[in-house]
Amino acid sequence: MKKNEYKIVEDYMLEQMKDSAHDKHHVYRVLNFALDIAYHEVATNDIALDILVAACLLHDIGREKQFANPGSCHAQIGGEMAYEFLSSIEFIKWSKQKALHVKECISTHRYRRDNKPQSIEAKILFDADKLDASGALGIARTLMYEGEVKEPLYRLDENGKVITGDGGADISTFFQEYNYKLKHIYDSFYTERAKELAVERKKTAEDFYNRLYNEITMNYENGLRKYQTYLESV
Amino acid sequence: MKKNEYKIVEDYMLEQMKDSAHDKHHVYRVLNFALDIAYHEVATNDIALDILVAACLLHDIGREKQFANPGSCHAQIGGEMAYEFLSSIEFIKWSKQKALHVKECISTHRYRRDNKPQSIEAKILFDADKLDASGALGIARTLMYEGEVKEPLYRLDENGKVITGDGGADISTFFQEYNYKLKHIYDSFYTERAKELAVERKKTAEDFYNRLYNEITMNYENGLRKYQTYLESV
Repeated sequence: MKKNEYKIVEDYMLEQMKDSAHDKHHVYRVLNFALDIAYHEVATNDIALDILVAACLLHDIGREKQFANPGSCHAQIGGEMAYEFLSSIEFIKWSKQKALHVKECISTHRYRRDNKPQSIEAKILFDADKLDASGALGIARTLMYEGEVKEPLYRLDENGKVITGDGGADISTFFQEYNYKLKHIYDSFYTERAKELAVERKKTAEDFYNRLYNEITMNYENGLRKYQTYLESV
Repeated sequence: MKKNEYKIVEDYMLEQMKDSAHDKHHVYRVLNFALDIAYHEVATNDIALDILVAACLLHDIGREKQFANPGSCHAQIGGEMAYEFLSSIEFIKWSKQKALHVKECISTHRYRRDNKPQSIEAKILFDADKLDASGALGIARTLMYEGEVKEPLYRLDENGKVITGDGGADISTFFQEYNYKLKHIYDSFYTERAKELAVERKKTAEDFYNRLYNEITMNYENGLRKYQTYLESV
């Protein structure tokens, strides 16, 4: 991909994501992870860097439409949009085959049992996107999301314990989101480089989760519980 | 404080904070920290538990008014509101002296050079409130706040480095907020128990901050920079 070609694809991405300051940073990090993986995989795989870069830049452009219509899937929508854009825009006008390859990468980047990435470029995008949900970055993004949708950090059960059950479709706190999604991503990587990068990040995420859990639990153990005993006695 | 008296003060707090799910949990944690500190300080200090509990429960009730009028101070407003409430409400009707003591605790709980806590109860509330901004909890609350006000996790300077300057009055990212406020609270505690609780929490916060910084820095070092070099060459 030439520099001005990159600029055109990047500008289209920025235009589609103009309302989401956080998502733009996510897109660049996914691109960075993907390139890091690609540089390591290149010894064993023939990687189409053009396809990979375009797929990374455009992988989340369907989010706005999914947000407007929550029943839809941003990966499917984004794949279609990327195909239309790459195969029709002046200056770029990729072949149908190349544009379809990007579409395939984008449409399989979500964690879905029935729609898994097939090509090496699709696998790299998938891994790069999951890496950005791992480690301290995954923790930080999840907490910021909880704040944005005004969900609480945790809920307590009737015994004053933090509810850590995964919550299923009804995820609502950081603790439930972590147990429903974040802690499982470490088993889903395809590439060796992603697996390697994930090792320390997994430890970081687990450490933070455990420390946060302990801080909250100790807070209640050491404080209010003693006071409740006192209140019962007066 | 009798159990039903506690209930009346708690209900008033919940009523004032009905729109802020996060703040309610913060209030209970501050109460828990304060009681933990009080149980440890009781050997060397005569602590008025009634005053302390009421001050903790009511310390943030001025937030809504500060939000409506950003030039005002929620500690001053909350102190006034608590005084009015405690000295007038049926069933409680505390003496002016007791109600004024609660007001003093609340009005000095912010980190301000010119308005420092004087009584042991005021110092305990101050420490308890700062403990909740320390450790993993402080990190989590700050990230959720950044998400809520839609500020980004970080900004990069022209060399692609995370901006960590404290940002002064113009704080806008998690990294700036951490350097402007979070990292300084560990020097501000009055009580021995708070200092003791803060040791491990300080390490937790620093660990997370450093790991997050490294993850972001490595992401750019390993990915996009190499790609930019490649783009320049084609």
